Amino acid sequence: MRVPYDTMVAEFNRVLLKYNMEPEKALKAAHLFADASRDGVYTHGLNRFPRFISYIEQGAVDVNAEPELVAEFGALARYDGKSGPGNLNAAFCADKAMELADKYGVGVVAIGNTNHWMRPGAFGLQAAEKGYMAILWTNTTPNLPAWGSDEARLGNNPIVFAVPSRQGIVLLDVAMSMFSYGKIEQYMRAGKPLPVAGGYDTKGELTTDASEIWKTNRALPIGYWKGSGMSLMLDLFASVLSGGRNVHKIGDLPQEAELCQLFMMVNMDAFGDREAMLDKIDDTLNYVAGSHPAAEGIKVRWPGQGMKRTRDDNMANGIPVDEEIWNKVLAM
Amino acid sequence: MRVPYDTMVAEFNRVLLKYNMEPEKALKAAHLFADASRDGVYTHGLNRFPRFISYIEQGAVDVNAEPELVAEFGALARYDGKSGPGNLNAAFCADKAMELADKYGVGVVAIGNTNHWMRPGAFGLQAAEKGYMAILWTNTTPNLPAWGSDEARLGNNPIVFAVPSRQGIVLLDVAMSMFSYGKIEQYMRAGKPLPVAGGYDTKGELTTDASEIWKTNRALPIGYWKGSGMSLMLDLFASVLSGGRNVHKIGDLPQEAELCQLFMMVNMDAFGDREAMLDKIDDTLNYVAGSHPAAEGIKVRWPGQGMKRTRDDNMANGIPVDEEIWNKVLAM
Repeated sequence: MRVPYDTMVAEFNRVLLKYNMEPEKALKAAHLFADASRDGVYTHGLNRFPRFISYIEQGAVDVNAEPELVAEFGALARYDGKSGPGNLNAAFCADKAMELADKYGVGVVAIGNTNHWMRPGAFGLQAAEKGYMAILWTNTTPNLPAWGSDEARLGNNPIVFAVPSRQGIVLLDVAMSMFSYGKIEQYMRAGKPLPVAGGYDTKGELTTDASEIWKTNRALPIGYWKGSGMSLMLDLFASVLSGGRNVHKIGDLPQEAELCQLFMMVNMDAFGDREAMLDKIDDTLNYVAGSHPAAEGIKVRWPGQGMKRTRDDNMANGIPVDEEIWNKVLAM
Repeated sequence: MRVPYDTMVAEFNRVLLKYNMEPEKALKAAHLFADASRDGVYTHGLNRFPRFISYIEQGAVDVNAEPELVAEFGALARYDGKSGPGNLNAAFCADKAMELADKYGVGVVAIGNTNHWMRPGAFGLQAAEKGYMAILWTNTTPNLPAWGSDEARLGNNPIVFAVPSRQGIVLLDVAMSMFSYGKIEQYMRAGKPLPVAGGYDTKGELTTDASEIWKTNRALPIGYWKGSGMSLMLDLFASVLSGGRNVHKIGDLPQEAELCQLFMMVNMDAFGDREAMLDKIDDTLNYVAGSHPAAEGIKVRWPGQGMKRTRDDNMANGIPVDEEIWNKVLAM
């Protein structure tokens, strides 16, 4: 089943208004959810919407709260997210970091006490569409074992890199686990094996069976000890600079809330050579996309290269939905 | 064979002076090389020294050149490395980024036209020893195939995260390939298999045989497509902001030279709560190090936790050396 983009936005908007979100905010949040599904990130669009609503019901998300400036020093700012909607808070912080970058060449905003931002890449797109280069990440509840452990004490802490280009936005949106739990859930629902081993089964062996990993909660960090170390570092930077909860303390909460995020934006006009920068970006993308394929039929792509095709298809033919979830939203 | 730290410094210093490096620079570079071996990073200490000297002989490294400021905008600065020694240039940029962080809370320095910085972690240590949080990375010559390709058009682009703590410096120093070529070389020389698959053999299959990967030059990115994407992004940020060569154009040179690096430093005094930051860092490290081990005998560690032990052992008992390489240096 496929649902038109505008219908999806309207339904999300309707539900959010019902939960007393202010109209301007509801429309913005509705777009952020629908945009994720439109771009093919189904796990963090429609599929995530019911959980977002349940968080409002549980009081973890305060629908109309706004970030509050706690401290500022030059190009560095710290916000308290006041348990507001994670995607709206994140969009706010991305804008603030761009303002700082306008003034200082680079801007870094750290926010604590915020909620899950849904699709991480949304805020990279937001920056790159305005001509900034961006790096941003979040911490999460403990959901990933450190290398050498079978107990989840790290977050999968997604990181996003976004760079504008003449060929479309270069967008990388990756969790520190081989597969995010959203993705593992997607494979489990579809009953398909993961393309490469993504964690451990109940016997302690590496497996491509998503349902086994869902049971053990023992996902595999990318690059084994490397992703394990990166996850720790991302948590340290986000929680220390925001003054918010680290992964450990998020784990003390009844649900995944009071997260920390960090937004770093770079002003591509700082040195007055944006065109030369865009030339170099084109050269880099063309070089990599022109790589010799490892096997016939493979097309080497840069991150984000396939997104436009999915977006165009979904705008023209409607967004594919999980009917069960879509009906749940319609019934809200 | 083990060599005292001071002897190693003295030998490197002697050779560098012979190659007309100014005395103050020679001593600093000698320490940087010896420090890498002292901390157990043998691949980028002694083992790399002969190649550094050959680069001087080939004219790729201009021993006494210093970075030149090209452009500056607030917290963001761009330098031309003037083909100077990579480790000295990087130490300079790390200092400059810390100066910017003092003023703006965060400082970002990008350098192009520099040389291999040897041990990446050295400049993370330099920052964290002075109380800064740091993220830094470099691009490289093409040495890693993009995901889906069998042709090396990405760099393994090492990235470093460094954070001070009361328990020692938290230091992560990782390349975007599962194993750096320095590490692959080390396993090949030792005739040992890699602990996990690190690339492809001559038949196109994943392998733990370092000598096979050395032949195919087809290393595996961490997290498959994820590390592939991150490598591209790190190259874009470093080359675009420095105005230097991207991985593609470095590949046009007869040897790995004219690299780009990016240094981001954060001032932990910006918000006046360093002690609270250090409390949170301790809590994070203790929580992760206290993870339940996946098997008996395993001790879960945070990045850099084992370094002190290696350093103390090597300072007390001498630094283990590859005799062939050490004799080569003695004969220089």
